Amino acid sequence: MTDTTKTWPHHELGRKVSNWGRWGPDDEIGTLNYVTDAKRVAAAQLVRSGRAFDLGLPFDKDGPFKDGGFRVNPQHIMTLLPSDTNTPDNLISADDMVVMGLQAATQWDSLAHIGYDGFFYNNVPAAAVNSFVGAARNSFAKSVKNLITRGVLLDIAALKGVDRLESSYEITAQDLSDAEERQGVRVESGDVLLLRTGWVAWFHEGDRKNFLGKEPGPGLDAVPWLHTREIAALATDNHACEVMPSAVEGVGVPFHQVVIRDMGLLVGEMFDFEELATDCAQDGVWEFLFNGTGLKVTGSVGSPITPIALK
Amino acid sequence: MTDTTKTWPHHELGRKVSNWGRWGPDDEIGTLNYVTDAKRVAAAQLVRSGRAFDLGLPFDKDGPFKDGGFRVNPQHIMTLLPSDTNTPDNLISADDMVVMGLQAATQWDSLAHIGYDGFFYNNVPAAAVNSFVGAARNSFAKSVKNLITRGVLLDIAALKGVDRLESSYEITAQDLSDAEERQGVRVESGDVLLLRTGWVAWFHEGDRKNFLGKEPGPGLDAVPWLHTREIAALATDNHACEVMPSAVEGVGVPFHQVVIRDMGLLVGEMFDFEELATDCAQDGVWEFLFNGTGLKVTGSVGSPITPIALK
Amino acid sequence: MTDTTKTWPHHELGRKVSNWGRWGPDDEIGTLNYVTDAKRVAAAQLVRSGRAFDLGLPFDKDGPFKDGGFRVNPQHIMTLLPSDTNTPDNLISADDMVVMGLQAATQWDSLAHIGYDGFFYNNVPAAAVNSFVGAARNSFAKSVKNLITRGVLLDIAALKGVDRLESSYEITAQDLSDAEERQGVRVESGDVLLLRTGWVAWFHEGDRKNFLGKEPGPGLDAVPWLHTREIAALATDNHACEVMPSAVEGVGVPFHQVVIRDMGLLVGEMFDFEELATDCAQDGVWEFLFNGTGLKVTGSVGSPITPIALK
Amino acid sequence: MTDTTKTWPHHELGRKVSNWGRWGPDDEIGTLNYVTDAKRVAAAQLVRSGRAFDLGLPFDKDGPFKDGGFRVNPQHIMTLLPSDTNTPDNLISADDMVVMGLQAATQWDSLAHIGYDGFFYNNVPAAAVNSFVGAARNSFAKSVKNLITRGVLLDIAALKGVDRLESSYEITAQDLSDAEERQGVRVESGDVLLLRTGWVAWFHEGDRKNFLGKEPGPGLDAVPWLHTREIAALATDNHACEVMPSAVEGVGVPFHQVVIRDMGLLVGEMFDFEELATDCAQDGVWEFLFNGTGLKVTGSVGSPITPIALK
Repeated sequence: MTDTTKTWPHHELGRKVSNWGRWGPDDEIGTLNYVTDAKRVAAAQLVRSGRAFDLGLPFDKDGPFKDGGFRVNPQHIMTLLPSDTNTPDNLISADDMVVMGLQAATQWDSLAHIGYDGFFYNNVPAAAVNSFVGAARNSFAKSVKNLITRGVLLDIAALKGVDRLESSYEITAQDLSDAEERQGVRVESGDVLLLRTGWVAWFHEGDRKNFLGKEPGPGLDAVPWLHTREIAALATDNHACEVMPSAVEGVGVPFHQVVIRDMGLLVGEMFDFEELATDCAQDGVWEFLFNGTGLKVTGSVGSPITPIALK
Repeated sequence: MTDTTKTWPHHELGRKVSNWGRWGPDDEIGTLNYVTDAKRVAAAQLVRSGRAFDLGLPFDKDGPFKDGGFRVNPQHIMTLLPSDTNTPDNLISADDMVVMGLQAATQWDSLAHIGYDGFFYNNVPAAAVNSFVGAARNSFAKSVKNLITRGVLLDIAALKGVDRLESSYEITAQDLSDAEERQGVRVESGDVLLLRTGWVAWFHEGDRKNFLGKEPGPGLDAVPWLHTREIAALATDNHACEVMPSAVEGVGVPFHQVVIRDMGLLVGEMFDFEELATDCAQDGVWEFLFNGTGLKVTGSVGSPITPIALK
Repeated sequence: MTDTTKTWPHHELGRKVSNWGRWGPDDEIGTLNYVTDAKRVAAAQLVRSGRAFDLGLPFDKDGPFKDGGFRVNPQHIMTLLPSDTNTPDNLISADDMVVMGLQAATQWDSLAHIGYDGFFYNNVPAAAVNSFVGAARNSFAKSVKNLITRGVLLDIAALKGVDRLESSYEITAQDLSDAEERQGVRVESGDVLLLRTGWVAWFHEGDRKNFLGKEPGPGLDAVPWLHTREIAALATDNHACEVMPSAVEGVGVPFHQVVIRDMGLLVGEMFDFEELATDCAQDGVWEFLFNGTGLKVTGSVGSPITPIALK
Repeated sequence: MTDTTKTWPHHELGRKVSNWGRWGPDDEIGTLNYVTDAKRVAAAQLVRSGRAFDLGLPFDKDGPFKDGGFRVNPQHIMTLLPSDTNTPDNLISADDMVVMGLQAATQWDSLAHIGYDGFFYNNVPAAAVNSFVGAARNSFAKSVKNLITRGVLLDIAALKGVDRLESSYEITAQDLSDAEERQGVRVESGDVLLLRTGWVAWFHEGDRKNFLGKEPGPGLDAVPWLHTREIAALATDNHACEVMPSAVEGVGVPFHQVVIRDMGLLVGEMFDFEELATDCAQDGVWEFLFNGTGLKVTGSVGSPITPIALK
């Protein structure tokens, strides 16, 4: 089914922005290498008022996924109830478990999530991701220490003067520069860049069909900009951090292919920037300490997170 | 089975250190209220070198639990493999899921985990924790914003001149004060207090039986000290943050009962302080920015975490 | 919340049809005791043409349950794919798992599923069903050997001249006798009685809302009839084998309470009798060898099944 | 890694006993086609005393698998406890779920479980088994109607005069014929053939290491015999129905490859014949009605079962 004679434009772009080998042949965290010790010190200095903002959606059975689809919402199950205990001193106790996709609700895509032509980021062959060990390389588990850094929010919806971007709107490099200028902030090396599309409102309104539908997102045009700025990770408030349908005929996720596989960029999805964006618009401060550590699940391809911004 | 005529010493102690009502009748986060905006600002200032320390155990099937017990190790399962994709542009993709106890490996006990006499923290009745909604009150999900604060590590094993404390050793108030003096640090309101027992070495040595066995931990004697100092949360590097067996004849977890149910204190278990303790011993700095957000699972009683300390 | 002064009519009925103690104080299988060796021999003789009828719904994510409800549809997950294997002789292999409620789709309710006043069938206290061991008594696991016996299908929908019974229709003792007479068959000791309501058509039509809605089913009036006839188990083709809403004001499942807890009768739900009923109507034979063994899950309260009728 | 120049002896054997196309190009149940209506009628006649024998191991966390391996034991979890209910009439209720491999404990391997050279039984390509739909072809779900038929037990351990066969003993065609002669029974078209090795005793003795170790089983020599006799399915009382290690150097499961992929034969594993064998030795009757329906899980590769023999 693969047309090996065809040259795909996104794969050509991928070669131009490739970071393969940049941090050595064994590197598994890609652009998270931009998060240096000095970067962390500077990021911590951004905590000025001490206010905390929760950027995560809850994990539960009322999550974003619909009945019968490939991904399902988290199932939270009690495994011990107060009635199970019977001790002389009247102890009561409770325990619980969860059955969940690691990309259910707010989450990171690791560098083992998307590739093409048989390889993931940094020359990792497809077979390194298998049922026996999960992601033997590029696992999310390797990334946990570098996900606390400076965060910058660019409000693309506000730039365009709307509450939420329209369906299938493609965010361009120009949009990113315009948002910087409008907000008076500059994206720098080692930042986690947060792009607000306003799309998460569909979820809050209970409209899963639209939330999972033809969403706006960053397109291939934005890739060189993201590469040059040396961002550490990218996250959006919609379900896939990708224009849907994509501008490349017949190809579902060209942006993912290039940024995850070639650049080695972690991609965050289903974040919620509504409260944070309101605050930033009020005080004019669009930078903060971003905390998005996630879970160190061995061999994991993705990670659920509850990210917190501290201003 | 309950002896209602008997007065339990730990329940009497509980009344003395109770925080019920202190932050209002609807409060669900207890001592995390000590984490104020000002506290967060001060905590962020502690990031001086930018070094990051991972304080978590990995989540996988080789975790701390043993075959056939009540709790089981996390099961990580691939739900999409590179071979599943077949597109013209040669995309490969992977997805995964996890089936896990929310208290598997490194984790927080929420204020819905332990109670007695029919109530959890702040007058929440046992029936508020049920199979329909999980923890309708005191859920861990309420706590996520307040788990980034100053952390202080007290190395009790080093205080006692050993690599790991002996079985069933009870950490006292005097030990805590002695460790402060020895290290030149003071535990303050709003801190997350980390107690190193060295016990996690059993896990690293592959000895689950001892790791889950008669562990050292804080006893009832330490409770008033913890209460007075107004710590926000407490965590240890063993499996239960409790002396085992406890000093109260026939009672399994008296410390948990008092600090979680009466004080409203989050308790962390199965942390790993080995690398951090070595570093702190070298530079003499035992305070840092502690990040232990966890996951916002609706109705959850506990939360897996990968805590990170930034110095 | 319990009104202890009130005498409930279904509980009074329960006392009249009680089988507690009938098969000894340790009995855990209730009316399945009617399935004797002689009964099995006679039942096997009913296989005359050798045709097999599958009476089960499939177990999958497109099952009867809806998004966000208490019960969820089965999740079938591949845990090994052909691409995972790489041996000199080119082996390919696949493995899979399931996460499912034991009462997802076609299933048996065991005698540990429903009780009242603190007890399950045969004086088993509520606490015998707990998180540590599941159902310490009355588990479905005890029943597996007695679920192959004579089956008799009574087509109540056909009796009433409709494709499916109307919402909330209550099947009475008279209906059962009338159906016997119409079909020329008699329900006997040790039979599994199958009642066709036609309701499963809602599921086949993809209308989960109606399938899970106000269904027809056997009412309290039918209980003495079922008791006298000494049936071994009862199953229907709707989701709960109960008139919904029930005829007892404010009480959800009075029929379940009496037949499961007092009589000790296994109840089957979400069976599919469409193909079998058509065949029986054609040849006038409404009896067959019924095979509904289920799974021997230790401590289980229910069991998924794929029942097969052999004529 | 594949040596394409090499001709494998088991693959040559596979071509000789191949049933591909025998029941048409769309057939998905292979030798289960031998279970005809007439066969079912004859099998039912074998029920003479009405005694039932449970041939299954329980499904629970104390099952055959060991900590940290690829397959894990079933996890049974209560999802509703008596304490969760609070109605005026004092209802109590319980519900539960299971997380389990479909090949945990007693189970069938379907025709989508094992193949080679890129194909499963009847020319089904490897890609037909994927994460999206499970087994799109050859799923176990197709087989449920044909798993009630005549069963014949051949006691190979008794033939060899031992309680359990020695490690790695290979059962030959001669052994099968000798056992027939010794027992006075003949395996016929459409039978489920049960081979007793006595190996299950390791499991009953709590020795999982030996149970999962170098087991005895049928070898390639027996394949033509099984093919000629037209058995419908084959099951053993050890963990893999295969000599371990196999007689083919460097190849793990040559017997599985040939019988499942080429013959289209369902293979059952981890059955328990101890009680049945004792009974058969006493009355000299080694044939019975075998019931091994399993669960109709859509797209499933295997199925847990609790098989029942009726004599």
